[in-house]
Amino acid sequence: MATQPLVDPELLQRKTSWQPYFAAKLGFRDHWYVACFSHELGEGAVVLRQIMGEGILLRRIDGAVYAIRDRCIHRGVRLSEKVECHTADTISCWYHGFTFRWATGDLCAVFGAPESTAIGKKKIETYPVSEAKGLVFVYIGEQGATPPPLAHDCPPNFLDDDNVVEGEARMVASNWRLGPEGGLDEIHRYLHRESPLLLNIQGSMPLGHTAMRGQFELIDGEDGPRGIIDRFKAEKMFFDAEIDGVTVAKGVNFGAAKRRAVYSSCWMPACLKVEGFPDDGVTLFEWYVPVDETTHRCFITFGKHCADAAGEAAFRREYHTRWLPLAIDGFLSQDIMARESSQHYYQNDRAWFEEGLIGEDFMLIEWRKLCSRRQRTVQSLDRLL
Amino acid sequence: MATQPLVDPELLQRKTSWQPYFAAKLGFRDHWYVACFSHELGEGAVVLRQIMGEGILLRRIDGAVYAIRDRCIHRGVRLSEKVECHTADTISCWYHGFTFRWATGDLCAVFGAPESTAIGKKKIETYPVSEAKGLVFVYIGEQGATPPPLAHDCPPNFLDDDNVVEGEARMVASNWRLGPEGGLDEIHRYLHRESPLLLNIQGSMPLGHTAMRGQFELIDGEDGPRGIIDRFKAEKMFFDAEIDGVTVAKGVNFGAAKRRAVYSSCWMPACLKVEGFPDDGVTLFEWYVPVDETTHRCFITFGKHCADAAGEAAFRREYHTRWLPLAIDGFLSQDIMARESSQHYYQNDRAWFEEGLIGEDFMLIEWRKLCSRRQRTVQSLDRLL
Amino acid sequence: MATQPLVDPELLQRKTSWQPYFAAKLGFRDHWYVACFSHELGEGAVVLRQIMGEGILLRRIDGAVYAIRDRCIHRGVRLSEKVECHTADTISCWYHGFTFRWATGDLCAVFGAPESTAIGKKKIETYPVSEAKGLVFVYIGEQGATPPPLAHDCPPNFLDDDNVVEGEARMVASNWRLGPEGGLDEIHRYLHRESPLLLNIQGSMPLGHTAMRGQFELIDGEDGPRGIIDRFKAEKMFFDAEIDGVTVAKGVNFGAAKRRAVYSSCWMPACLKVEGFPDDGVTLFEWYVPVDETTHRCFITFGKHCADAAGEAAFRREYHTRWLPLAIDGFLSQDIMARESSQHYYQNDRAWFEEGLIGEDFMLIEWRKLCSRRQRTVQSLDRLL
Repeated sequence: MATQPLVDPELLQRKTSWQPYFAAKLGFRDHWYVACFSHELGEGAVVLRQIMGEGILLRRIDGAVYAIRDRCIHRGVRLSEKVECHTADTISCWYHGFTFRWATGDLCAVFGAPESTAIGKKKIETYPVSEAKGLVFVYIGEQGATPPPLAHDCPPNFLDDDNVVEGEARMVASNWRLGPEGGLDEIHRYLHRESPLLLNIQGSMPLGHTAMRGQFELIDGEDGPRGIIDRFKAEKMFFDAEIDGVTVAKGVNFGAAKRRAVYSSCWMPACLKVEGFPDDGVTLFEWYVPVDETTHRCFITFGKHCADAAGEAAFRREYHTRWLPLAIDGFLSQDIMARESSQHYYQNDRAWFEEGLIGEDFMLIEWRKLCSRRQRTVQSLDRLL
Repeated sequence: MATQPLVDPELLQRKTSWQPYFAAKLGFRDHWYVACFSHELGEGAVVLRQIMGEGILLRRIDGAVYAIRDRCIHRGVRLSEKVECHTADTISCWYHGFTFRWATGDLCAVFGAPESTAIGKKKIETYPVSEAKGLVFVYIGEQGATPPPLAHDCPPNFLDDDNVVEGEARMVASNWRLGPEGGLDEIHRYLHRESPLLLNIQGSMPLGHTAMRGQFELIDGEDGPRGIIDRFKAEKMFFDAEIDGVTVAKGVNFGAAKRRAVYSSCWMPACLKVEGFPDDGVTLFEWYVPVDETTHRCFITFGKHCADAAGEAAFRREYHTRWLPLAIDGFLSQDIMARESSQHYYQNDRAWFEEGLIGEDFMLIEWRKLCSRRQRTVQSLDRLL
Repeated sequence: MATQPLVDPELLQRKTSWQPYFAAKLGFRDHWYVACFSHELGEGAVVLRQIMGEGILLRRIDGAVYAIRDRCIHRGVRLSEKVECHTADTISCWYHGFTFRWATGDLCAVFGAPESTAIGKKKIETYPVSEAKGLVFVYIGEQGATPPPLAHDCPPNFLDDDNVVEGEARMVASNWRLGPEGGLDEIHRYLHRESPLLLNIQGSMPLGHTAMRGQFELIDGEDGPRGIIDRFKAEKMFFDAEIDGVTVAKGVNFGAAKRRAVYSSCWMPACLKVEGFPDDGVTLFEWYVPVDETTHRCFITFGKHCADAAGEAAFRREYHTRWLPLAIDGFLSQDIMARESSQHYYQNDRAWFEEGLIGEDFMLIEWRKLCSRRQRTVQSLDRLL
């Protein structure tokens, strides 16, 4: 195929206020991303993931996880088409026998040309890997660069020692940017008005509230995670949807007891954190990982601070019996449907100029600006041969 | 996706004689188009149509039909994905509860932000609607503009009081322009030589005739419909297809009695009218409505002037028992097959420079010129976020 | 659709050393290509093929084969959609009855316009045809040009009187260029290490050998076929694949007896010749015929010099019982899999700048240069309306 830019250069030039975000159809490089759950990678197992358009192979060797590019350096074929690991710490291409070390990427043998001068000199790309809370993170950045601490790309408290994490992954047919934007959206609760979760937890959920423009916090220092926080300081909540004075739909209302303020926030590169969701003491961490221009992998995880093993066991049981069916399948899946629907619109780059955001959507704009200001490198097609 | 022009600008510039027609891959705006049959829109029903690339929702309220754009003004999702009409004259977006009035497009409520300043100020696009002869027409033009009379976009006599109309719709996998061009094509009867219609009506159909260049009428005034008429003034007809003096195929020949002159004509924006087809006293009105670059919806309708209710009932019965199976499925479907086949060629814009029209095809060129001279606005991608 | 260049002009400009080869995504014109096997074209039969993007219809008339473009000169429809041959030496378009002579392309009748001045003047494109060794070749070049002898586009000895040829065709989901490049690849035998063919013929196959850079012959005269020959003059062969001194895979080794030097060569426009494959006395001739940018039709043929009818019968029997299952399905199909896998990489034009060829791949570069130096015309999209 002929090569096409990700975004029409003429359009890109016209977007002045958050141009890097507009350009980042494939996400931002030089960040840590969730690749898979730890339990998907047993000892010796090989897993293939596509992140920001790049094919990445992961393998666990003696407990540690290593990641390399799924593309032979010679003729470009995918190693994953026929995985051949003749020794524990190497992988050989099925075509010419180019053999690489998982840990360093070094080319250590070529079966078809054993005396090739390329041996010991060439490398396949490798990715730094970090594992925490049952998730495997890979750092997509410049070869050989020292990555920032993983904590810089995780929401605060996620890595706390006593934070226990459970979750699921879902493939979503939308660009990754619709993930954080849907999470920061303050006025979309009408979508969730019939979720079974609310009845289960006996929690109230208004359909609307008065505007809260400007009431947000920006965490934007030189070190540590960068994000934007909404503390839901609404003055007034509305539980009735009205047209011409007639109530046509109602929010769920169990009274003030459960009308607690749940903090919501979003963190670079792309993780939503909602405290008190799905219920008191539990926190949602939702990670939006770009796969390609029109798809992201969504890791929906819940964390709870557990004092001991009994508390942890109870939370894990609760996750499988309540939060998986009620919060993921019964609530967050509605957001996924909305993201996939919005994608039909936003896949056309011109939509980003025509969208009809209203004053209440100010958080989205702030998030776009934060990403644009603090991003390190926009992923480009040059990476995606 | 990156945005691409509908037609390569360099090619467009090279087409000097009928450039607007060449550019109108998605049709001409500022015209009335058939959206659906009246019987498809019962009271309260909602119907979705795509015309010239635009999603349009129609709803009948207290007998009248209203049309709005199928795209929420806020985040661009399609209202049609989950139609929510809480009151008779409004529709609410399933995502944030943006609520619009069908008649005016006014934003009259936002369930998620009941105090938004956008309420009462913003509008969703609306389309003027007109209903006649069992068809629902929408006007695709500038917001708020006063449309011309419907009669200007219908062939003469279609709207006559005593004209009774029946018909069907077919989706056709070709650009809309191949519709009128196939209808004006004087020399394609070989395609129809085995149609069962001709035996049923005992009508003669030659395979060819002598050239009739220049023998056409142009109706091109400031007011009223604009079209081109061919009165079939052939001097000589040929019923035998010959190769090297050998007859290899024959037209249908029942003698001179049924070799009547049926007038054929085509009217802007895109309606073919054939008098005397499929039989004496009946007129074909075939409407070609652009859906997207490669598809049009074809409304195949027949009209007959009926003096009274008995005559009307007889014609409607005749339509269902003769013209639907014989004229639509047995004859006009052959033209649809030819249009879909030509599409493989004409979908490449360069084909419009290389096509091998012969002298007998002069009507097509005149039609292209008429459209180019009289068109109001070429539909562009700017409309199709 | 809007027209797009086959290769991004900016990229094309950057490729200086073998630019025409890089541009020839659809192959080279002014050459002979295999269209089909003779036995596919019985007397009167019509066969459709796509070669370098062009639809081509072939028909056998009184023993001789004729070829025309599968596109009516009038409105561009494909004649093949409804083949109508009313007389032995003509074909009529099903739409308007444009009738062409197979031998000359002359328009000899138009059923819909019997007196058209186009009759006797216009032509449909024709292609010179040559038949040899059970294969039908067509020459894709300028209309009316005298083609070079077929022998110029066949490997040496293919057309020898006593050469008996058998074979199969396979559709392969890769660009045609990956065919010759895979054939010239000296170091890919690891891919074949478990082929059942080697056990059957009791032939040795090393996995690798020492580099043989520069040891090739270029046949590049003004007349006759042009190609590049590799005589496999390796000094040392390796039967063990080793990683860190440990043998992890082995080649097939029956001792020196069968470690014969089989000559390998590649000939313009795109035919691989391997002497002594699959066994002594047999020669592989593999033809890579471009279908479109991402597909080629591969004619896998084997030739053997047979002294008499008994020898020929024995070879044909051997082909069906040994070489078809063992050499095609059991060995060459592995190369097809590798070509289709490489296509994922090379379909991106930028891959041709990033590929990691090593010194041992010098033959590929020489082949690209030969093609670039000696090619006549790069096939362009202008041909493919």
